Amino acid sequence: MNPHVDLKEFQQQHGELITNHMVETIDSLAMPPTLKGAMIYSLQAGGKRIRPILLLATIKAFNKDPLLGLNTASALEMIHTYSLIHDDLPAMDDDDLRRGKPTNHKIFGEAMAILAGDGLLTFSFQLIAEDNDLTSDMKIRLIGLLAKCAGPQGMVGGQVADIEGENKQLSVTELEGIHEHKTGKLLIFSVLAGGIVSEASEEELELLEKFAYHIGLAFQIQDDILDIEGSEEMIGKPVGSDESKLKSTYPSLLTMAGAKEKLHYHLNEALASLKQMPIDTRLLTEIAQLIVARNH
Amino acid sequence: MNPHVDLKEFQQQHGELITNHMVETIDSLAMPPTLKGAMIYSLQAGGKRIRPILLLATIKAFNKDPLLGLNTASALEMIHTYSLIHDDLPAMDDDDLRRGKPTNHKIFGEAMAILAGDGLLTFSFQLIAEDNDLTSDMKIRLIGLLAKCAGPQGMVGGQVADIEGENKQLSVTELEGIHEHKTGKLLIFSVLAGGIVSEASEEELELLEKFAYHIGLAFQIQDDILDIEGSEEMIGKPVGSDESKLKSTYPSLLTMAGAKEKLHYHLNEALASLKQMPIDTRLLTEIAQLIVARNH
Repeated sequence: MNPHVDLKEFQQQHGELITNHMVETIDSLAMPPTLKGAMIYSLQAGGKRIRPILLLATIKAFNKDPLLGLNTASALEMIHTYSLIHDDLPAMDDDDLRRGKPTNHKIFGEAMAILAGDGLLTFSFQLIAEDNDLTSDMKIRLIGLLAKCAGPQGMVGGQVADIEGENKQLSVTELEGIHEHKTGKLLIFSVLAGGIVSEASEEELELLEKFAYHIGLAFQIQDDILDIEGSEEMIGKPVGSDESKLKSTYPSLLTMAGAKEKLHYHLNEALASLKQMPIDTRLLTEIAQLIVARNH
Repeated sequence: MNPHVDLKEFQQQHGELITNHMVETIDSLAMPPTLKGAMIYSLQAGGKRIRPILLLATIKAFNKDPLLGLNTASALEMIHTYSLIHDDLPAMDDDDLRRGKPTNHKIFGEAMAILAGDGLLTFSFQLIAEDNDLTSDMKIRLIGLLAKCAGPQGMVGGQVADIEGENKQLSVTELEGIHEHKTGKLLIFSVLAGGIVSEASEEELELLEKFAYHIGLAFQIQDDILDIEGSEEMIGKPVGSDESKLKSTYPSLLTMAGAKEKLHYHLNEALASLKQMPIDTRLLTEIAQLIVARNH
Protein backbone atom coordinates (compact mmCIF):
# COMPACT_ATOMS: atom_id res chain seq x y z
CA MET A 1 0.00 0.00 0.00
CA ASN A 2 2.82 2.40 0.82
CA PRO A 3 5.86 1.08 -0.99
CA HIS A 4 9.02 2.44 0.56
CA VAL A 5 11.38 4.51 -1.54
CA ASP A 6 14.71 5.52 -0.14
CA LEU A 7 15.42 9.13 0.68
CA LYS A 8 17.79 9.72 -2.20
CA GLU A 9 15.18 8.63 -4.71
CA PHE A 10 12.42 10.58 -2.95
CA GLN A 11 14.58 13.68 -2.79
CA GLN A 12 15.64 13.54 -6.43
CA GLN A 13 12.15 12.95 -7.71
CA HIS A 14 10.38 15.48 -5.53
CA GLY A 15 13.17 18.04 -5.44
CA GLU A 16 12.95 18.38 -9.20
CA LEU A 17 9.16 18.49 -9.04
CA ILE A 18 9.26 21.34 -6.52
CA THR A 19 11.78 23.33 -8.54
CA ASN A 20 9.75 22.88 -11.71
CA HIS A 21 6.50 23.73 -9.96
CA MET A 22 7.93 26.91 -8.44
CA VAL A 23 9.51 28.05 -11.70
CA GLU A 24 6.47 27.26 -13.85
CA THR A 25 4.13 28.96 -11.40
CA ILE A 26 6.17 32.17 -11.28
CA ASP A 27 6.71 32.04 -15.03
CA SER A 28 2.94 31.95 -15.62
CA LEU A 29 2.34 35.25 -13.79
CA ALA A 30 2.12 38.62 -15.53
CA MET A 31 4.91 40.82 -14.15
CA PRO A 32 7.91 42.81 -15.40
CA PRO A 33 10.42 40.40 -17.04
CA THR A 34 13.35 41.61 -14.91
CA LEU A 35 11.46 40.85 -11.71
CA LYS A 36 10.45 37.44 -13.00
CA GLY A 37 14.05 36.73 -14.00
CA ALA A 38 15.35 37.74 -10.58
CA MET A 39 12.79 35.61 -8.73
CA ILE A 40 13.40 32.57 -10.92
CA TYR A 41 17.19 32.97 -10.75
CA SER A 42 17.22 32.39 -7.02
CA LEU A 43 14.60 29.63 -7.14
CA GLN A 44 16.83 27.78 -9.61
CA ALA A 45 20.08 28.43 -7.79
CA GLY A 46 20.10 24.96 -6.28
CA GLY A 47 19.87 24.11 -2.64
CA LYS A 48 18.96 20.90 -0.90
CA ARG A 49 15.22 21.60 -0.71
CA ILE A 50 15.30 20.19 2.83
CA ARG A 51 12.17 22.02 3.99
CA PRO A 52 9.81 21.06 1.16
CA ILE A 53 11.19 17.49 1.11
CA LEU A 54 10.53 17.25 4.84
CA LEU A 55 6.98 18.48 4.26
CA LEU A 56 6.26 15.96 1.53
CA ALA A 57 7.99 13.13 3.44
CA THR A 58 5.75 13.84 6.44
CA ILE A 59 2.67 13.46 4.24
CA LYS A 60 4.06 10.19 2.90
CA ALA A 61 4.64 8.99 6.48
CA PHE A 62 0.88 9.35 7.00
CA ASN A 63 0.31 7.23 3.88
CA LYS A 64 -1.22 10.10 1.91
CA ASP A 65 -0.27 11.49 -1.50
CA PRO A 66 2.75 13.80 -1.03
CA LEU A 67 1.55 15.95 -3.93
CA LEU A 68 -1.28 17.19 -1.72
CA GLY A 69 1.45 19.38 -0.21
CA LEU A 70 3.10 20.52 -3.45
CA ASN A 71 1.85 24.12 -3.34
CA THR A 72 2.51 24.48 0.38
CA ALA A 73 6.00 23.01 -0.02
CA SER A 74 6.70 25.39 -2.90
CA ALA A 75 5.43 28.36 -0.87
CA LEU A 76 7.72 27.31 1.98
CA GLU A 77 10.75 27.07 -0.31
CA MET A 78 9.91 30.49 -1.78
CA ILE A 79 9.98 31.96 1.72
CA HIS A 80 13.29 30.24 2.45
CA THR A 81 14.63 31.62 -0.86
CA TYR A 82 13.43 35.19 -0.16
CA SER A 83 15.16 35.05 3.23
CA LEU A 84 18.46 34.06 1.58
CA ILE A 85 18.17 36.89 -0.99
CA HIS A 86 17.61 39.49 1.74
CA ASP A 87 20.25 37.95 4.07
CA ASP A 88 22.87 38.22 1.33
CA LEU A 89 22.31 41.97 0.78
CA PRO A 90 25.19 44.37 1.46
CA ALA A 91 23.27 45.85 4.41
CA MET A 92 22.98 42.35 5.94
CA ASP A 93 25.60 39.59 5.45
CA ASP A 94 27.04 41.19 2.27
CA ASP A 95 27.67 37.87 0.54
CA ASP A 96 28.78 37.67 -3.09
CA LEU A 97 28.31 33.93 -3.40
CA ARG A 98 25.51 31.56 -2.43
CA ARG A 99 25.69 27.88 -3.27
CA GLY A 100 28.72 28.69 -5.40
CA LYS A 101 26.80 31.17 -7.60
CA PRO A 102 26.67 34.98 -7.55
CA THR A 103 24.05 36.19 -5.10
CA ASN A 104 20.87 37.80 -6.44
CA HIS A 105 21.94 41.42 -5.92
CA LYS A 106 25.30 40.75 -7.62
CA ILE A 107 23.38 39.92 -10.80
CA PHE A 108 20.25 42.06 -10.60
CA GLY A 109 21.29 44.92 -8.32
CA GLU A 110 20.16 45.68 -4.78
CA ALA A 111 16.80 47.26 -5.55
CA MET A 112 15.73 44.30 -7.66
CA ALA A 113 16.98 41.83 -5.05
CA ILE A 114 14.93 43.53 -2.34
CA LEU A 115 11.85 43.47 -4.58
CA ALA A 116 12.41 39.89 -5.77
CA GLY A 117 12.49 38.87 -2.10
CA ASP A 118 9.35 40.87 -1.32
CA GLY A 119 7.67 39.31 -4.34
CA LEU A 120 8.52 35.73 -3.35
CA LEU A 121 7.39 36.30 0.24
CA THR A 122 4.07 37.84 -0.81
CA PHE A 123 3.36 35.30 -3.53
CA SER A 124 3.96 32.36 -1.20
CA PHE A 125 0.75 33.17 0.69
CA GLN A 126 -1.16 33.56 -2.56
CA LEU A 127 0.03 30.13 -3.68
CA ILE A 128 -1.46 28.48 -0.61
CA ALA A 129 -4.65 30.57 -0.73
CA GLU A 130 -5.25 29.53 -4.35
CA ASP A 131 -4.62 25.80 -3.76
CA ASN A 132 -7.70 23.94 -5.00
CA ASP A 133 -6.81 20.64 -3.33
CA LEU A 134 -7.10 21.87 0.27
CA THR A 135 -10.06 23.06 2.31
CA SER A 136 -10.33 26.70 3.40
CA ASP A 137 -9.90 25.61 7.02
CA MET A 138 -6.64 23.81 6.20
CA LYS A 139 -5.37 26.73 4.15
CA ILE A 140 -6.09 29.25 6.89
CA ARG A 141 -4.28 27.07 9.40
CA LEU A 142 -1.30 26.68 7.04
CA ILE A 143 -1.12 30.40 6.24
CA GLY A 144 -1.44 31.48 9.86
CA LEU A 145 1.26 29.04 10.92
CA LEU A 146 3.58 29.86 8.02
CA ALA A 147 3.35 33.60 8.73
CA LYS A 148 3.98 33.00 12.43
CA CYS A 149 7.02 30.78 11.73
CA ALA A 150 8.46 33.12 9.06
CA GLY A 151 7.58 36.51 10.56
CA PRO A 152 8.64 38.63 13.55
CA GLN A 153 7.80 35.83 16.02
CA GLY A 154 9.83 33.39 13.95
CA MET A 155 12.49 33.66 11.26
CA VAL A 156 12.58 37.47 10.92
CA GLY A 157 12.86 37.83 14.69
CA GLY A 158 15.65 35.21 14.71
CA GLN A 159 17.50 37.09 12.00
CA VAL A 160 17.40 40.27 14.09
CA ALA A 161 18.59 38.38 17.18
CA ASP A 162 21.37 36.85 15.09
CA ILE A 163 22.57 40.25 13.87
CA GLU A 164 22.43 41.64 17.40
CA GLY A 165 24.36 38.62 18.72
CA GLU A 166 27.29 39.17 16.36
CA ASN A 167 30.62 40.08 17.90
CA LYS A 168 29.19 39.25 21.29
CA GLN A 169 29.81 36.32 23.62
CA LEU A 170 26.52 34.44 23.82
CA SER A 171 25.42 31.71 26.21
CA VAL A 172 24.35 28.37 24.74
CA THR A 173 20.76 29.24 25.68
CA GLU A 174 20.96 32.52 23.77
CA LEU A 175 22.54 30.80 20.78
CA GLU A 176 19.82 28.16 20.84
CA GLY A 177 17.12 30.82 21.02
CA ILE A 178 18.52 32.47 17.91
CA HIS A 179 18.64 29.23 15.94
CA GLU A 180 15.25 28.12 17.19
CA HIS A 181 13.78 31.20 15.54
CA LYS A 182 16.10 31.88 12.62
CA THR A 183 16.08 28.38 11.16
CA GLY A 184 14.09 26.20 13.56
CA LYS A 185 10.62 27.66 13.08
CA LEU A 186 10.54 27.04 9.32
CA LEU A 187 11.61 23.43 9.89
CA ILE A 188 8.81 23.09 12.42
CA PHE A 189 6.42 24.49 9.82
CA SER A 190 7.69 21.95 7.25
CA VAL A 191 6.74 19.01 9.43
CA LEU A 192 3.55 20.49 10.93
CA ALA A 193 2.27 21.49 7.48
CA GLY A 194 2.73 17.90 6.35
CA GLY A 195 0.75 16.82 9.39
CA ILE A 196 -2.02 19.38 8.83
CA VAL A 197 -2.45 18.35 5.20
CA SER A 198 -2.56 14.71 6.34
CA GLU A 199 -5.20 15.48 8.98
CA ALA A 200 -2.93 14.37 11.81
CA SER A 201 -4.37 14.44 15.35
CA GLU A 202 -3.40 17.20 17.78
CA GLU A 203 -1.29 14.67 19.70
CA GLU A 204 0.54 13.69 16.52
CA LEU A 205 1.09 17.34 15.66
CA GLU A 206 2.74 17.84 19.05
CA LEU A 207 5.08 14.90 18.45
CA LEU A 208 5.84 16.15 14.95
CA GLU A 209 6.71 19.55 16.37
CA LYS A 210 9.04 17.96 18.91
CA PHE A 211 10.70 15.95 16.15
CA ALA A 212 11.20 19.09 14.06
CA TYR A 213 12.47 21.12 17.00
CA HIS A 214 15.25 18.61 17.64
CA ILE A 215 16.29 18.11 14.03
CA GLY A 216 16.32 21.90 13.67
CA LEU A 217 18.87 22.27 16.43
CA ALA A 218 20.83 19.26 15.16
CA PHE A 219 20.88 20.87 11.72
CA GLN A 220 22.32 24.09 13.09
CA ILE A 221 24.95 22.38 15.22
CA GLN A 222 26.06 20.39 12.18
CA ASP A 223 26.21 23.66 10.20
CA ASP A 224 28.58 25.12 12.78
CA ILE A 225 30.68 21.96 12.77
CA LEU A 226 30.88 21.96 8.96
CA ASP A 227 31.88 25.60 8.97
CA ILE A 228 35.06 24.51 10.75
CA GLU A 229 35.59 20.99 9.39
CA GLY A 230 34.07 21.24 5.91
CA SER A 231 35.81 22.13 2.69
CA GLU A 232 34.95 25.29 0.77
CA GLU A 233 34.08 23.29 -2.32
CA MET A 234 31.55 21.17 -0.44
CA ILE A 235 29.66 23.91 1.37
CA GLY A 236 29.78 26.58 -1.37
CA LYS A 237 30.88 29.43 0.89
CA PRO A 238 34.26 30.33 2.40
CA VAL A 239 35.07 27.96 5.27
CA GLY A 240 35.36 29.72 8.59
CA SER A 241 33.24 32.65 7.37
CA ASP A 242 31.22 32.58 10.59
CA GLU A 243 34.32 32.34 12.75
CA SER A 244 35.96 35.29 11.00
CA LYS A 245 33.12 37.51 12.19
CA LEU A 246 33.66 36.38 15.78
CA LYS A 247 30.27 34.70 15.82
CA SER A 248 29.31 32.50 18.74
CA THR A 249 29.01 28.91 17.51
CA TYR A 250 28.39 25.57 19.21
CA PRO A 251 32.00 24.42 18.83
CA SER A 252 33.28 27.75 20.19
CA LEU A 253 30.98 27.56 23.20
CA LEU A 254 31.06 23.80 23.89
CA THR A 255 34.31 22.61 22.24
CA MET A 256 34.06 20.44 19.14
CA ALA A 257 33.53 17.27 21.19
CA GLY A 258 30.78 18.96 23.21
CA ALA A 259 29.07 20.15 20.02
CA LYS A 260 29.10 16.65 18.56
CA GLU A 261 27.69 15.20 21.75
CA LYS A 262 24.85 17.75 21.65
CA LEU A 263 24.25 16.95 18.00
CA HIS A 264 23.65 13.29 18.83
CA TYR A 265 21.46 14.12 21.80
CA HIS A 266 19.09 16.08 19.54
CA LEU A 267 19.15 13.36 16.90
CA ASN A 268 18.14 10.77 19.49
CA GLU A 269 15.36 12.96 20.88
CA ALA A 270 14.04 13.51 17.36
CA LEU A 271 13.99 9.79 16.62
CA ALA A 272 12.33 9.04 19.97
CA SER A 273 9.43 11.40 19.08
CA LEU A 274 8.96 9.66 15.76
CA LYS A 275 8.71 6.25 17.35
CA GLN A 276 5.69 7.33 19.40
CA MET A 277 3.52 7.69 16.30
CA PRO A 278 1.78 4.90 14.36
CA ILE A 279 3.16 6.18 11.05
CA ASP A 280 5.72 5.00 8.53
CA THR A 281 8.78 6.71 9.97
CA ARG A 282 11.38 5.44 7.52
CA LEU A 283 11.82 8.53 5.32
CA LEU A 284 11.75 10.94 8.26
CA THR A 285 14.32 8.83 10.09
CA GLU A 286 16.59 8.91 7.07
CA ILE A 287 16.22 12.69 6.83
CA ALA A 288 17.14 13.10 10.50
CA GLN A 289 20.19 10.87 10.06
CA LEU A 290 21.24 12.67 6.88
CA ILE A 291 21.26 16.01 8.70
CA VAL A 292 23.89 14.64 11.03
CA ALA A 293 25.89 12.78 8.40
CA ARG A 294 25.88 15.44 5.66
CA ASN A 295 29.13 17.03 4.65
CA HIS A 296 27.74 20.19 3.03
CA MET B 1 -30.37 52.53 11.20
CA ASN B 2 -27.26 53.84 9.53
CA PRO B 3 -26.79 57.37 10.83
CA HIS B 4 -24.50 59.31 8.56
CA VAL B 5 -21.23 60.64 9.92
CA ASP B 6 -19.15 62.95 7.82
CA LEU B 7 -15.83 61.78 6.46
CA LYS B 8 -13.71 63.91 8.76
CA GLU B 9 -15.36 62.43 11.83
CA PHE B 10 -15.20 58.89 10.42
CA GLN B 11 -11.55 59.32 9.48
CA GLN B 12 -10.52 60.75 12.85
CA GLN B 13 -12.34 58.10 14.83
CA HIS B 14 -11.32 55.10 12.75
CA GLY B 15 -7.85 56.35 11.84
CA GLU B 16 -6.94 56.43 15.51
CA LEU B 17 -8.57 53.04 16.07
CA ILE B 18 -6.49 51.51 13.26
CA THR B 19 -3.25 53.01 14.53
CA ASN B 20 -3.94 51.81 18.06
CA HIS B 21 -4.96 48.36 16.88
CA MET B 22 -1.82 47.97 14.76
CA VAL B 23 0.49 49.18 17.50
CA GLU B 24 -1.15 47.13 20.26
CA THR B 25 -1.15 44.01 18.12
CA ILE B 26 2.55 44.28 17.25
CA ASP B 27 3.38 45.25 20.81
CA SER B 28 1.76 42.06 22.11
CA LEU B 29 4.03 39.78 20.05
CA ALA B 30 7.22 38.21 21.42
CA MET B 31 10.13 39.46 19.30
CA PRO B 32 13.45 41.31 19.73
CA PRO B 33 12.73 44.82 21.12
CA THR B 34 14.69 46.58 18.35
CA LEU B 35 12.60 44.91 15.68
CA LYS B 36 9.40 45.77 17.53
CA GLY B 37 10.55 49.36 17.89
CA ALA B 38 11.37 49.65 14.20
CA MET B 39 8.02 48.18 13.12
CA ILE B 40 6.02 50.39 15.49
CA TYR B 41 8.02 53.51 14.56
CA SER B 42 6.82 53.37 10.98
CA LEU B 43 3.26 52.38 11.91
CA GLN B 44 3.08 55.48 14.12
CA ALA B 45 4.75 57.82 11.64
CA GLY B 46 1.43 59.29 10.56
CA GLY B 47 -0.13 59.05 7.14
CA LYS B 48 -3.67 59.58 5.98
CA ARG B 49 -4.74 55.93 6.44
CA ILE B 50 -6.59 56.28 3.13
CA ARG B 51 -6.59 52.54 2.38
CA PRO B 52 -7.95 51.24 5.71
CA ILE B 53 -10.46 54.11 5.90
CA LEU B 54 -11.66 53.21 2.41
CA LEU B 55 -12.04 49.60 3.51
CA LEU B 56 -14.07 50.46 6.60
CA ALA B 57 -16.13 53.07 4.74
CA THR B 58 -17.07 50.43 2.16
CA ILE B 59 -18.35 48.17 4.93
CA LYS B 60 -20.35 51.06 6.35
CA ALA B 61 -21.81 51.72 2.90
CA PHE B 62 -23.27 48.20 3.06
CA ASN B 63 -24.79 49.04 6.44
CA LYS B 64 -22.57 46.59 8.33
CA ASP B 65 -20.29 47.16 11.29
CA PRO B 66 -17.02 48.70 10.01
CA LEU B 67 -15.14 46.98 12.83
CA LEU B 68 -15.69 43.64 11.07
CA GLY B 69 -12.86 44.83 8.82
CA LEU B 70 -10.52 46.13 11.54
CA ASN B 71 -7.93 43.34 11.25
CA THR B 72 -8.02 43.31 7.46
CA ALA B 73 -7.71 47.12 7.36
CA SER B 74 -4.76 46.94 9.76
CA ALA B 75 -3.09 44.21 7.68
CA LEU B 76 -3.54 46.39 4.59
CA GLU B 77 -1.98 49.42 6.27
CA MET B 78 0.93 47.25 7.48
CA ILE B 79 1.58 46.21 3.87
CA HIS B 80 1.41 49.84 2.74
CA THR B 81 3.83 50.75 5.55
CA TYR B 82 6.31 47.97 4.69
CA SER B 83 6.30 49.15 1.07
CA LEU B 84 7.20 52.68 2.17
CA ILE B 85 10.04 51.41 4.39
CA HIS B 86 11.56 49.38 1.54
CA ASP B 87 10.94 52.15 -1.07
CA ASP B 88 12.84 54.63 1.09
CA LEU B 89 16.00 52.46 1.32
CA PRO B 90 19.26 53.78 -0.18
CA ALA B 91 19.14 51.07 -2.87
CA MET B 92 15.66 52.28 -3.89
CA ASP B 93 14.50 55.93 -3.61
CA ASP B 94 17.12 56.80 -0.97
CA ASP B 95 14.82 59.11 0.98
CA ASP B 96 15.81 60.60 4.34
CA LEU B 97 12.36 61.95 5.16
CA ARG B 98 8.89 60.47 5.04
CA ARG B 99 5.89 62.46 6.20
CA GLY B 100 8.35 64.98 7.62
CA LYS B 101 10.09 62.41 9.86
CA PRO B 102 13.37 60.51 9.39
CA THR B 103 12.82 57.35 7.36
CA ASN B 104 13.06 53.98 9.08
CA HIS B 105 16.63 53.16 7.98
CA LYS B 106 17.84 56.62 9.07
CA ILE B 107 16.86 55.71 12.63
CA PHE B 108 17.34 51.94 12.80
CA GLY B 109 19.86 51.23 10.03
CA GLU B 110 19.37 49.51 6.71
CA ALA B 111 19.41 45.90 7.92
CA MET B 112 16.73 46.58 10.52
CA ALA B 113 14.62 48.54 8.02
CA ILE B 114 14.69 45.63 5.57
CA LEU B 115 13.70 43.22 8.35
CA ALA B 116 11.03 45.52 9.81
CA GLY B 117 9.48 45.64 6.34
CA ASP B 118 9.70 41.87 5.94
CA GLY B 119 8.15 41.47 9.38
CA LEU B 120 5.21 43.77 8.67
CA LEU B 121 4.54 42.10 5.32
CA THR B 122 4.61 38.61 6.79
CA PHE B 123 2.58 39.46 9.87
CA SER B 124 -0.17 41.10 7.84
CA PHE B 125 -1.24 37.69 6.50
CA GLN B 126 -1.13 36.20 9.99
CA LEU B 127 -3.40 38.97 11.26
CA ILE B 128 -6.09 38.10 8.72
CA ALA B 129 -5.63 34.34 9.20
CA GLU B 130 -6.13 34.70 12.96
CA ASP B 131 -9.22 36.94 12.71
CA ASN B 132 -11.99 35.24 14.71
CA ASP B 133 -14.81 37.37 13.29
CA LEU B 134 -14.53 36.14 9.70
CA THR B 135 -15.19 32.73 8.12
CA SER B 136 -12.32 30.68 6.69
CA ASP B 137 -13.76 31.15 3.20
CA MET B 138 -13.76 34.93 3.59
CA LYS B 139 -10.25 34.93 5.03
CA ILE B 140 -8.87 32.81 2.20
CA ARG B 141 -10.45 35.12 -0.35
CA LEU B 142 -9.04 38.18 1.43
CA ILE B 143 -5.54 36.71 1.76
CA GLY B 144 -5.42 35.50 -1.85
CA LEU B 145 -6.57 38.89 -3.12
CA LEU B 146 -4.28 40.87 -0.81
CA ALA B 147 -1.23 38.85 -1.89
CA LYS B 148 -2.17 39.25 -5.55
CA CYS B 149 -2.65 43.02 -5.18
CA ALA B 150 0.53 43.50 -3.12
CA GLY B 151 2.86 40.99 -4.82
CA PRO B 152 4.61 40.58 -8.17
CA GLN B 153 1.32 40.86 -10.10
CA GLY B 154 0.46 44.02 -8.18
CA MET B 155 2.37 46.54 -6.10
CA VAL B 156 5.83 44.87 -6.22
CA GLY B 157 5.56 44.52 -9.99
CA GLY B 158 4.48 48.16 -10.24
CA GLN B 159 7.45 49.23 -8.15
CA VAL B 160 9.81 47.42 -10.54
CA ALA B 161 8.10 48.99 -13.57
CA ASP B 162 8.37 52.38 -11.88
CA ILE B 163 12.13 51.99 -11.32
CA GLU B 164 12.62 50.81 -14.90
CA GLY B 165 10.57 53.76 -16.20
CA GLU B 166 12.78 56.35 -14.51
CA ASN B 167 14.76 58.68 -16.74
CA LYS B 168 12.76 57.42 -19.70
CA GLN B 169 10.03 59.10 -21.73
CA LEU B 170 6.88 57.03 -21.09
CA SER B 171 3.55 57.07 -22.91
CA VAL B 172 0.42 57.86 -20.90
CA THR B 173 -0.57 54.20 -21.24
CA GLU B 174 2.76 53.05 -19.78
CA LEU B 175 2.51 55.59 -16.97
CA GLU B 176 -1.03 54.43 -16.23
CA GLY B 177 0.08 50.79 -16.18
CA ILE B 178 2.75 51.61 -13.59
CA HIS B 179 0.33 53.46 -11.33
CA GLU B 180 -2.38 50.86 -11.77
CA HIS B 181 0.00 48.32 -10.23
CA LYS B 182 2.17 50.38 -7.90
CA THR B 183 -0.65 52.17 -6.08
CA GLY B 184 -3.90 51.16 -7.79
CA LYS B 185 -4.06 47.49 -6.83
CA LEU B 186 -3.92 48.14 -3.06
CA LEU B 187 -6.72 50.71 -3.42
CA ILE B 188 -8.73 48.12 -5.32
CA PHE B 189 -8.07 45.67 -2.49
CA SER B 190 -9.25 48.26 0.06
CA VAL B 191 -12.66 48.54 -1.53
CA LEU B 192 -13.05 44.89 -2.56
CA ALA B 193 -12.08 43.70 0.92
CA GLY B 194 -14.83 45.90 2.35
CA GLY B 195 -17.22 44.31 -0.12
CA ILE B 196 -16.09 40.75 0.67
CA VAL B 197 -16.50 41.28 4.41
CA SER B 198 -19.96 42.75 3.73
CA GLU B 199 -20.95 39.78 1.58
CA ALA B 200 -21.46 41.95 -1.50
CA SER B 201 -22.70 40.25 -4.68
CA GLU B 202 -20.30 39.54 -7.57
CA GLU B 203 -21.96 42.34 -9.54
CA GLU B 204 -21.42 44.76 -6.68
CA LEU B 205 -17.79 43.65 -6.35
CA GLU B 206 -17.28 44.48 -10.04
CA LEU B 207 -18.71 47.97 -9.56
CA LEU B 208 -16.61 48.45 -6.42
CA GLU B 209 -13.50 47.47 -8.37
CA LYS B 210 -14.36 49.97 -11.12
CA PHE B 211 -14.86 52.68 -8.49
CA ALA B 212 -11.49 51.90 -6.91
CA TYR B 213 -9.71 51.72 -10.27
CA HIS B 214 -10.81 55.25 -11.13
CA ILE B 215 -10.11 56.81 -7.74
CA GLY B 216 -6.70 55.12 -7.84
CA LEU B 217 -5.78 56.86 -11.07
CA ALA B 218 -7.31 60.13 -9.85
CA PHE B 219 -5.22 59.82 -6.68
CA GLN B 220 -2.02 59.43 -8.67
CA ILE B 221 -2.77 62.28 -11.06
CA GLN B 222 -3.45 64.54 -8.07
CA ASP B 223 -0.14 63.38 -6.56
CA ASP B 224 1.70 64.47 -9.70
CA ILE B 225 -0.16 67.80 -9.71
CA LEU B 226 0.66 68.41 -6.04
CA ASP B 227 4.29 67.60 -6.66
CA ILE B 228 4.40 70.68 -8.88
CA GLU B 229 1.81 72.93 -7.27
CA GLY B 230 1.98 71.86 -3.61
CA SER B 231 4.12 73.39 -0.89
CA GLU B 232 6.90 71.41 0.79
CA GLU B 233 5.33 71.94 4.19
CA MET B 234 2.02 70.45 3.09
CA ILE B 235 3.26 67.32 1.36
CA GLY B 236 6.16 66.50 3.70
CA LYS B 237 8.77 65.89 0.99
CA PRO B 238 10.74 68.27 -1.24
CA VAL B 239 8.46 69.75 -3.92
CA GLY B 240 9.51 68.80 -7.43
CA SER B 241 11.37 65.71 -6.18
CA ASP B 242 9.80 63.60 -8.93
CA GLU B 243 10.56 66.19 -11.60
CA SER B 244 14.19 66.48 -10.55
CA LYS B 245 14.67 62.77 -11.36
CA LEU B 246 13.26 63.30 -14.88
CA LYS B 247 10.28 61.11 -14.06
CA SER B 248 7.36 60.98 -16.47
CA THR B 249 4.30 62.54 -14.81
CA TYR B 250 0.79 63.34 -15.96
CA PRO B 251 1.45 67.10 -16.15
CA SER B 252 4.66 66.54 -18.10
CA LEU B 253 2.92 64.24 -20.59
CA LEU B 254 -0.45 65.97 -20.85
CA THR B 255 0.21 69.58 -19.73
CA MET B 256 -1.20 70.74 -16.40
CA ALA B 257 -4.60 71.50 -17.95
CA GLY B 258 -4.72 68.05 -19.56
CA ALA B 259 -3.81 66.37 -16.28
CA LYS B 260 -6.60 68.21 -14.46
CA GLU B 261 -9.10 67.27 -17.13
CA LYS B 262 -8.10 63.60 -16.78
CA LEU B 263 -8.38 63.88 -13.02
CA HIS B 264 -12.00 64.96 -13.29
CA TYR B 265 -12.79 62.31 -15.85
CA HIS B 266 -11.69 59.58 -13.42
CA LEU B 267 -13.57 61.20 -10.54
CA ASN B 268 -16.76 61.22 -12.57
CA GLU B 269 -16.33 57.60 -13.66
CA ALA B 270 -15.76 56.59 -10.03
CA LEU B 271 -18.91 58.38 -8.87
CA ALA B 272 -20.93 56.88 -11.74
CA SER B 273 -19.97 53.35 -10.60
CA LEU B 274 -21.09 54.11 -7.06
CA LYS B 275 -24.50 55.31 -8.19
CA GLN B 276 -25.25 51.92 -9.74
CA MET B 277 -25.32 50.22 -6.33
CA PRO B 278 -28.16 50.21 -3.79
CA ILE B 279 -25.81 51.21 -0.97
CA ASP B 280 -25.23 54.30 1.14
CA THR B 281 -22.65 56.02 -1.05
CA ARG B 282 -22.16 59.18 1.01
CA LEU B 283 -18.84 58.38 2.70
CA LEU B 284 -17.31 56.83 -0.43
CA THR B 285 -18.37 59.86 -2.47
CA GLU B 286 -16.72 62.15 0.05
CA ILE B 287 -13.51 60.11 -0.10
CA ALA B 288 -13.45 60.30 -3.90
CA GLN B 289 -13.98 64.05 -3.78
CA LEU B 290 -11.35 64.50 -1.10
CA ILE B 291 -8.75 62.77 -3.27
CA VAL B 292 -9.24 65.46 -5.88
CA ALA B 293 -9.52 68.40 -3.48
CA ARG B 294 -6.66 67.46 -1.11
CA ASN B 295 -3.63 69.72 -0.93
CA HIS B 296 -1.15 67.19 0.53
